[in-house]
Amino acid sequence: MTDLPSHISLREVGPRDGLQNEAPVPTGAKVALIDALSATGVGRIEAVSFVHPRAIPQMADADEVWQAITRNDAVRYSALVPNLRGAQRALAAGFAEIQVVVSASDTHNRMNVNRSTEESLDDIAQILDTAHEGGATCQVIVSTAWGCPYEGDVPVGRVVDVASRAVADGADGLSYGDTTGMATPTRVTRLVGETRDTLPEIGLNLHFHNTRGTGLANVLAALELGVADFDASVGGLGGCPYAPGATGNVCTEDLVYMVEDMGVATGVDLERMIDAARAAEGLVGRVLPSQVLRAGPRTRLTPAP
Amino acid sequence: MTDLPSHISLREVGPRDGLQNEAPVPTGAKVALIDALSATGVGRIEAVSFVHPRAIPQMADADEVWQAITRNDAVRYSALVPNLRGAQRALAAGFAEIQVVVSASDTHNRMNVNRSTEESLDDIAQILDTAHEGGATCQVIVSTAWGCPYEGDVPVGRVVDVASRAVADGADGLSYGDTTGMATPTRVTRLVGETRDTLPEIGLNLHFHNTRGTGLANVLAALELGVADFDASVGGLGGCPYAPGATGNVCTEDLVYMVEDMGVATGVDLERMIDAARAAEGLVGRVLPSQVLRAGPRTRLTPAP
Repeated sequence: MTDLPSHISLREVGPRDGLQNEAPVPTGAKVALIDALSATGVGRIEAVSFVHPRAIPQMADADEVWQAITRNDAVRYSALVPNLRGAQRALAAGFAEIQVVVSASDTHNRMNVNRSTEESLDDIAQILDTAHEGGATCQVIVSTAWGCPYEGDVPVGRVVDVASRAVADGADGLSYGDTTGMATPTRVTRLVGETRDTLPEIGLNLHFHNTRGTGLANVLAALELGVADFDASVGGLGGCPYAPGATGNVCTEDLVYMVEDMGVATGVDLERMIDAARAAEGLVGRVLPSQVLRAGPRTRLTPAP
Repeated sequence: MTDLPSHISLREVGPRDGLQNEAPVPTGAKVALIDALSATGVGRIEAVSFVHPRAIPQMADADEVWQAITRNDAVRYSALVPNLRGAQRALAAGFAEIQVVVSASDTHNRMNVNRSTEESLDDIAQILDTAHEGGATCQVIVSTAWGCPYEGDVPVGRVVDVASRAVADGADGLSYGDTTGMATPTRVTRLVGETRDTLPEIGLNLHFHNTRGTGLANVLAALELGVADFDASVGGLGGCPYAPGATGNVCTEDLVYMVEDMGVATGVDLERMIDAARAAEGLVGRVLPSQVLRAGPRTRLTPAP
């Protein structure tokens, strides 16, 4: 385990991916959460998504949130967009970095946006052009990359084909989403290996869910391959509203705790991230799946009676 | 990841380590749980402990449980013993395999049994002799092997010294217990490596807790070193009553799910283990931390509406 990256880049997705899957919270609370996160040292925050308010009322105030936060120059903020209209809104709001999603599983993509994967890829080609014309970068997220709750296994070749089409159309980066937590370490090794063989130049982010308990094991497998770019969600906020059983984004503080103890720097102050997780838990009013929020880091000792 | 063991041996510790840390359940329910587990294909079950009923009332019926279960010839049953008296009781009851615990942390050992680690090692030397005279084998479990909630880090050299003393005194096997979930993958690699250098011949079992979310990542790190002997607890039952914050034995069904998907055979029928976890949850009347019990294995698909 000597080949681990010395540091990784984390994208905190709690304010978007997390809150999008909770009962709506007030705009001011979202702003407070993002500001707390931007003070943790995390390098990137997925702040909002520009979706239609009828589709996802939780994100109806994306513009207000984005205007109200205290921008931290050390943080790269990004927005998720579902379509060209959303991309235009994100660019108009001043985002320099956007993400767009397509599912490798045709069934999942149809359930999600009522279009085939190929139709979504056509849309994405247009979004990429629009982003680039607006001076922004656009990452393409390939979801159900390790399996689909409707179709089951999604062949590695299919995932890489979808990714390759996005890269050919100008994607500035790729992310693979384990939408319903179907990845295991050997599957991570296989897909990352095949992607690198086919697309050696593209930046690759991995987005794991802990639905079946394998989230941090998958992170470990990816670290061993030198992957140095991960998504995580404070407190473990969020999931995927279109995927049954899809609870459990990997918790940021659990991931930070593990990799920092392994000598992999994240830039994140763990105690501040735990404080943010506690605040996130208060915000949504339910116990979040974070383990380190409960137990504290291993350095938090108990006085012997 | 080509060097993973083709199969591993699992010891199911839910009936002992698990139930010892829950409100007492009726003898018949314990028997039913052990019998359900012995039908899952798991190779070993830690069935009971022979402790003083005043210390741990949950295990007061150890003899009755052991007499009432349906013995499965394919399963190795074992008992935990805290002292010589417990070892004598276990041997009298007919156990051919016992375990005894010592903490690498002196403070933790004193909190646990009011003796120093060295005093406990002296006791264990006697227990080992007694077991061998009775024709049984005895594994020595070194707890707080990756850290102590009172002392913090426990030096790798200290853990290996304690293990070496036990082996010199005749231990038939070693187990390292991550009593309060302080292990991370690089710490697993370091301790296993040092142990193999010093004690190359001894069988080594690892017992992880998922207290800080790293349980399966630690299993992965150990698999990559060729470790092929793990403890796990059905549904994630149990913890350690003497260690604050010590929730979360690694769940058997989560471990089985992950490693089987990686091509590592366990002998366990996952669906039967999930059924046993559901029964265990009913038995203790609270939601257990198992993820695969909630989400099902990745092969359990959702019909597209």
